[in-house]
Amino acid sequence: MPGADEASGPREQSKVQQIPKEQVREDEKDYEFLQMAMEEARIAVKENSGGPFGAVLVDRSTGEVVARTHNCVVEHCDATAHAEMLAIKTACKRLNTFELNNCDMYTSCEPCPMSFAAIFLARIPRLVYGSDAEYATAVGYDPGNISDAIRGTAVHQKSDCEVKRLNHPMCAKIFSEHKEHLKVY
Amino acid sequence: MPGADEASGPREQSKVQQIPKEQVREDEKDYEFLQMAMEEARIAVKENSGGPFGAVLVDRSTGEVVARTHNCVVEHCDATAHAEMLAIKTACKRLNTFELNNCDMYTSCEPCPMSFAAIFLARIPRLVYGSDAEYATAVGYDPGNISDAIRGTAVHQKSDCEVKRLNHPMCAKIFSEHKEHLKVY
Repeated sequence: MPGADEASGPREQSKVQQIPKEQVREDEKDYEFLQMAMEEARIAVKENSGGPFGAVLVDRSTGEVVARTHNCVVEHCDATAHAEMLAIKTACKRLNTFELNNCDMYTSCEPCPMSFAAIFLARIPRLVYGSDAEYATAVGYDPGNISDAIRGTAVHQKSDCEVKRLNHPMCAKIFSEHKEHLKVY
Repeated sequence: MPGADEASGPREQSKVQQIPKEQVREDEKDYEFLQMAMEEARIAVKENSGGPFGAVLVDRSTGEVVARTHNCVVEHCDATAHAEMLAIKTACKRLNTFELNNCDMYTSCEPCPMSFAAIFLARIPRLVYGSDAEYATAVGYDPGNISDAIRGTAVHQKSDCEVKRLNHPMCAKIFSEHKEHLKVY
């Protein structure tokens, strides 16, 4: 973190020296890709394509950037076009698979539950994010509270979507009929 | 529900008669669109485009079907291509807005948290679903447990995505810099 060394006293200095070299290298690599995600967030603002959010997907083996994207909700006129969603889509197409278990995800901000669930569904094994969702919430964004909204424990926002659960046998039947499809999609 | 009347005794019959006419009409309308969502789920199976899940978006004012879609994860090679996500995308494009506050969502099965968060982000005010996610879980599907995975309380599945929180000032700064964008994307 720039400026962190200057601010730390002798005790913190000795702590810094104890960090293993591999950890420092990992942090440097993470910082590099996080900077790239931040560049994407800035593009979103500059081009007015959507909120200031960026995402980068990196091949864990080669270190190659597979996708770098920013929020395009306004540009694409699509409520689902968050940076992470577009990164997953792009990487799936590029690698010709819907399981990205060899990619690390870097995001400028803590993903909203839609994006986090997508990260989960895409089998991405590692996520590095730059700022807590609270920083976005503090200036009016609130996707970070969707999880609270779903649970009904939100401070700032609760979901007011009326949900009707029919639990109709017609709808349940298809699952027992198609037991052979045991894949999470 | 077909067959429900035959199975019900005198007490249930009198209960049925107490349901207000508007409620019966609403239920009939809901059933009609739920059947459509189920037809979509069956198309997904028949065409092997993805899991057996369907979604329908209906204009609340006119009753017009704005989008009807099914899971296309395999067909599109995209981990995010759930029926609800595609319905939202289609409706946003068709109505030229990313706020679908005049649409009802019908889904054959309880949406996973990715799709539910998308429903929330798209400002959809009403969701009717046909079967609990547990019916899908029982035969191997587990997106319904993503919320548990996120909370770490899952019975069947926990998220094993390693999450690194950097909380870097560089990433937090963009929100205070762009206070004028107070919109949830």
